[in-house]
Amino acid sequence: MTERFAFTIDAADGAARTGRIAMQRGTIRTPAFMPVGTAATVKAMKPETVRKTGADIILGNTYHLMLRPGAERMARLGGLHKFMNWQRPILTDSGGYQVMSLSELRKLTEKGVEFRSHIDGSKHMLTPERSMEIQRMLGSDIVMAFDECPRADRPRDEIAASMDMSMRWARRSRDGFDAGGEHAERSALFGIQQGALDEELRRISADKLTDIGFDGYAIGGLAVGGQLAGCEVKCGEHRFLAFADRPRYLMGVGKPDDLVGAVERGVDMFDCVLPSRSGRNGQAFTWNGPVNLRNARFAEDEEPLDSRCTCDTCGTYSRAYLHHLVKSQEILGAMLMTEHNIAFYQQLMQAMRDAIAEARFAQFARDFRRDYLQ
Amino acid sequence: MTERFAFTIDAADGAARTGRIAMQRGTIRTPAFMPVGTAATVKAMKPETVRKTGADIILGNTYHLMLRPGAERMARLGGLHKFMNWQRPILTDSGGYQVMSLSELRKLTEKGVEFRSHIDGSKHMLTPERSMEIQRMLGSDIVMAFDECPRADRPRDEIAASMDMSMRWARRSRDGFDAGGEHAERSALFGIQQGALDEELRRISADKLTDIGFDGYAIGGLAVGGQLAGCEVKCGEHRFLAFADRPRYLMGVGKPDDLVGAVERGVDMFDCVLPSRSGRNGQAFTWNGPVNLRNARFAEDEEPLDSRCTCDTCGTYSRAYLHHLVKSQEILGAMLMTEHNIAFYQQLMQAMRDAIAEARFAQFARDFRRDYLQ
Repeated sequence: MTERFAFTIDAADGAARTGRIAMQRGTIRTPAFMPVGTAATVKAMKPETVRKTGADIILGNTYHLMLRPGAERMARLGGLHKFMNWQRPILTDSGGYQVMSLSELRKLTEKGVEFRSHIDGSKHMLTPERSMEIQRMLGSDIVMAFDECPRADRPRDEIAASMDMSMRWARRSRDGFDAGGEHAERSALFGIQQGALDEELRRISADKLTDIGFDGYAIGGLAVGGQLAGCEVKCGEHRFLAFADRPRYLMGVGKPDDLVGAVERGVDMFDCVLPSRSGRNGQAFTWNGPVNLRNARFAEDEEPLDSRCTCDTCGTYSRAYLHHLVKSQEILGAMLMTEHNIAFYQQLMQAMRDAIAEARFAQFARDFRRDYLQ
Repeated sequence: MTERFAFTIDAADGAARTGRIAMQRGTIRTPAFMPVGTAATVKAMKPETVRKTGADIILGNTYHLMLRPGAERMARLGGLHKFMNWQRPILTDSGGYQVMSLSELRKLTEKGVEFRSHIDGSKHMLTPERSMEIQRMLGSDIVMAFDECPRADRPRDEIAASMDMSMRWARRSRDGFDAGGEHAERSALFGIQQGALDEELRRISADKLTDIGFDGYAIGGLAVGGQLAGCEVKCGEHRFLAFADRPRYLMGVGKPDDLVGAVERGVDMFDCVLPSRSGRNGQAFTWNGPVNLRNARFAEDEEPLDSRCTCDTCGTYSRAYLHHLVKSQEILGAMLMTEHNIAFYQQLMQAMRDAIAEARFAQFARDFRRDYLQ
């Protein structure tokens, strides 16, 4: 019988480490990048194409899915995996972050958050208990604790009070998850560290989470929209040490160079909309940095997006064709660009895993930055 | 060595017939439906997926491609096949129809049509000679003569004068094509019958085209936007008899029941934006008629779009999931719906080819209409 959740570190190189998380629906190689499948689809990609890029796990958004198609409906339809035809692990966020960033007329209390849907204005309530219930109805493999994610520029006492409440919510999330019966026996629960940019609050948050005990630990509140501002400050080493033997998940990060920097500091898991969103907007990531395919200089460029990339887009199509598709706002442009970007991210993760396993991560990071940040 | 263009009728059943057109880039099974690849892409589909549905040939639009990326640029990039990664036959229209329907500030003379681009307002001129040159630069396998396509509700003398000019343009197209050197030796040229709804003008047009001599003959001016108004009147048998031993191509048609009706009258080739455009708009074609996936009744429908369809969409996804994607305006919805619709059209063509080969087309047409028009 397959383990519920077993994290093995196979090799470490400095603070960086590589390993695997064995779960019932499949094994996740770490460091792992999780493509974002917000509304039960990694936008513009078929699930088999997502898998072909090397993704072991994808992310689904509780906030979006509870509003459409709805958690109860999803449960009646057999859960998210069956619905979207992705049989490998899925991590679902708790909804907390997106309630605050997307919904309207929020009311935040100790109990939870009351809000109106950004789609139709309907009224909803999310609490730690309801978030656990929804993620269970979706059939999530890795469930995230329900937290509040305040803006990092709020006063310290607000950040501290919010973090304290998130830690009480983490306890309630733990209890709600554990009461989930059969689902709790085959899935995992991650806690989320908060405390914004305050070193001391971050430490307290880490201690409280460790006291409760989770399968993995997320570093929350450091990324907004895929931008990691001031990573040097925020990814300081000691915060991760609290979670030494557990997967560390840096939520919402990030750009390729952010991923390298975070793996260097010991992060094991990432998610970010950047590769898919950029792909739809005509931006491609390459080993030589990002390129904007709208640029007229690509109009007769017969080279692939990236000569080292092994994806179908790079194996088949020229930059000239992609330029044409992007300029013409063709759906195929979004499809091919997204596929490349997700594949590039997965190839970057594989390259990092290889470099760590072969104890040459520092050299890899130097070479990467030389080419990528040129 | 493969033939330049060889049309073989393998079986006939009433006026309906099935056969194949052998060309250097591949064989086209007839009756054939050509998916429309306007701007060097069958919208929302990879070319290998288009092929997998059973398409032997696709259509490209001269008007769109001459404006973006441009004919000379396309020639420098090695032609349309290489550009879009479709190695099988491509039929290109002449640009005449779309200049009249899409461009601005047209000036029509015996020489040709002067117009401004609907994209950037730039000034262009299309003549029979220039249309042949552009289609040659695209690397078209089946080139269409340059014609004028007047509104069918214009007075008879206007229709007659327009048809006369289109026949002079057909002669110039023939000469321009024949002067194309190596390209003329490996590709084919089709003439286009005009004359709107006037039986006598249609007959004169057919005779003039036959006198010039073409590889195939198109019935033009009968379809606008995929709607075949008054097919009973317009697809009268005698007009096709003029082209008995050559492929007959009914341009811009149509709905599945239009295709069955036209095949019944002896048409061999079709193109239409309907399956792809409808797919992007949430409409699916099935053996039981069209269905609109936006409809709330599909929200928990676990059946495939069509239980008889062999496409990847029907083999993998529920109507509930497609309903969700369409409602959420997800690109994957456009992808999966388009793939189904193009596959359905190809399966309909295969079913008609089989029915003709087995001399049971009348029964097939009755059964089809019973289920489709229920």
